[in-house]
Amino acid sequence: MATLIAPMNHSPKEDADVLWKAVKGWGTDESAIIAIMGQRNAVQRQQIRQAYQDIYQEDLIKRLESELSGNFEKAMYRWILDPADRYAVLANVAIKSINKDYHVIVEIASVLQPQELLAVRHAYHNRYKNSLEEDVAAHTSGYHRQLLVGLVSSFRYDGVEINPILAKHEADILHEAVKNKKGNIEEVIRILITRSKTQLKATFNRYRDDHGFSISKKLLNEASDDFLKAVHVAIRCIDDHKKYYEKVLRGALKRIGTDEDGLTRVVITRAEKDLKDIKELYYKRNSVHLEDTVAKEISGDYKKFLLTLLGKGH
Amino acid sequence: MATLIAPMNHSPKEDADVLWKAVKGWGTDESAIIAIMGQRNAVQRQQIRQAYQDIYQEDLIKRLESELSGNFEKAMYRWILDPADRYAVLANVAIKSINKDYHVIVEIASVLQPQELLAVRHAYHNRYKNSLEEDVAAHTSGYHRQLLVGLVSSFRYDGVEINPILAKHEADILHEAVKNKKGNIEEVIRILITRSKTQLKATFNRYRDDHGFSISKKLLNEASDDFLKAVHVAIRCIDDHKKYYEKVLRGALKRIGTDEDGLTRVVITRAEKDLKDIKELYYKRNSVHLEDTVAKEISGDYKKFLLTLLGKGH
Repeated sequence: MATLIAPMNHSPKEDADVLWKAVKGWGTDESAIIAIMGQRNAVQRQQIRQAYQDIYQEDLIKRLESELSGNFEKAMYRWILDPADRYAVLANVAIKSINKDYHVIVEIASVLQPQELLAVRHAYHNRYKNSLEEDVAAHTSGYHRQLLVGLVSSFRYDGVEINPILAKHEADILHEAVKNKKGNIEEVIRILITRSKTQLKATFNRYRDDHGFSISKKLLNEASDDFLKAVHVAIRCIDDHKKYYEKVLRGALKRIGTDEDGLTRVVITRAEKDLKDIKELYYKRNSVHLEDTVAKEISGDYKKFLLTLLGKGH
Repeated sequence: MATLIAPMNHSPKEDADVLWKAVKGWGTDESAIIAIMGQRNAVQRQQIRQAYQDIYQEDLIKRLESELSGNFEKAMYRWILDPADRYAVLANVAIKSINKDYHVIVEIASVLQPQELLAVRHAYHNRYKNSLEEDVAAHTSGYHRQLLVGLVSSFRYDGVEINPILAKHEADILHEAVKNKKGNIEEVIRILITRSKTQLKATFNRYRDDHGFSISKKLLNEASDDFLKAVHVAIRCIDDHKKYYEKVLRGALKRIGTDEDGLTRVVITRAEKDLKDIKELYYKRNSVHLEDTVAKEISGDYKKFLLTLLGKGH
């Protein structure tokens, strides 16, 4: 379930008016902006952008960028974008990052539904005049490239059929590869980039049944290079993306100096989807409410905004 | 330009009636079937299928399959299908072929526009409950797999921008790889599966300018294994698919015992697109009209049907 609280009825025109008053003249009324934008869903936000453009003849996003700053600005910018466009931005930022945040790309390619991923690839064309796989390939090499390009290019079958014999067979292939570290890596890539998610989950379950521990746990101990790390993230995202996101949040908040990019990314991308479930997982795992940790670790308008998206009001 | 001659106005209901009379009772009026189906475009054919289903409560395709036979049946079956669905069938037949007709897969992936290829992948899901890349990957290995999976999974940027420096750089990479046969094959794959067609054409032109001959000509002399053959087909299809198809036709008709599958495939898939241009290329290259060769090499209803699609009447 989502954490976002959006009204059934809203007037895009009235919302645009409030925003205009919040940004015009000297100073900015950040609280008013948060109160509106933090409580509108994707469709409503696009309607507000459109109404704002129609009435005031300027781009709301550009205006907010010039009024806001820091992590708050970054979070608001990503939030306002249409989801496919937002993922395109997240992927591009990751590709160009100095830290090589390629796990973000694996995450996007592995968590999204096949049709959603196609929409992201389309948005990427429009925005960057390149294909997503083109830019990913240009920044990677070897098996790592093969896996990442395969993941972002995938259009998985999304039916519910499971082939148990195949699951057993491919669980064995994965096991061999992880065990020997030299096993048939090409086969591991083939399995991860082409099989349906339902089939892959069956394969991971079979692995667990046969070996008494999950393949992602096994990989966590072994993952030393970029390639194995990417395999690990892909498997976690396909197997149970909510648990994966809980861990991203935990890691982001536990660090000395919070990882704001990770925190923002999870809150922004999941608030309209399943952030409530992720919050519950977080509480179970850490015996503290996600909102309380967020409130402690970050501050200012950025904090107000994320807490609003987390459904806490403001 | 197309060779198909389709009337602006047609009545799906009347067409369905004619077809019903042609198949009902003893015997089949193949000429009537050809006169209708051989002169209707993709939209009209789907309307006829629908009208036939509505009026006679049976599937026109199934009925024709039971009434017709041999190459005529095969050609008619492929012709009636919606194009995306037809390509899905052609790809699946190629994947499962004993002769490993994987060039058909390279051809489909390289000739179609990015959006058309996505539609084929979608049709493939619906028909085979697998993804196209999944089935391709399961039947191939090594670099050959990497190239084929990459090609069928591609969603190329389709803008017209060209980067001439990149074209020079990547023409050099291709040259090195073809020259040494060991060059950086992964880079060749990356270039072929991710770059836009416009960019790739610029790269191939640059190769030609720098070396005095085309890369496909060079490859033709070198292509000894499945991988290099696939590279050759991909480059030809991207560089100039009409010339490529002319050659497929020439090869199909020159063989002792015509290659009906190749002949059917080109006529069926291009009749509504650019078969007229391909016919002209054929005439220039062979000093004989394509229709005349077709008329000489094949016979019966199959011949009547293909000649109709070639715009010759019947």
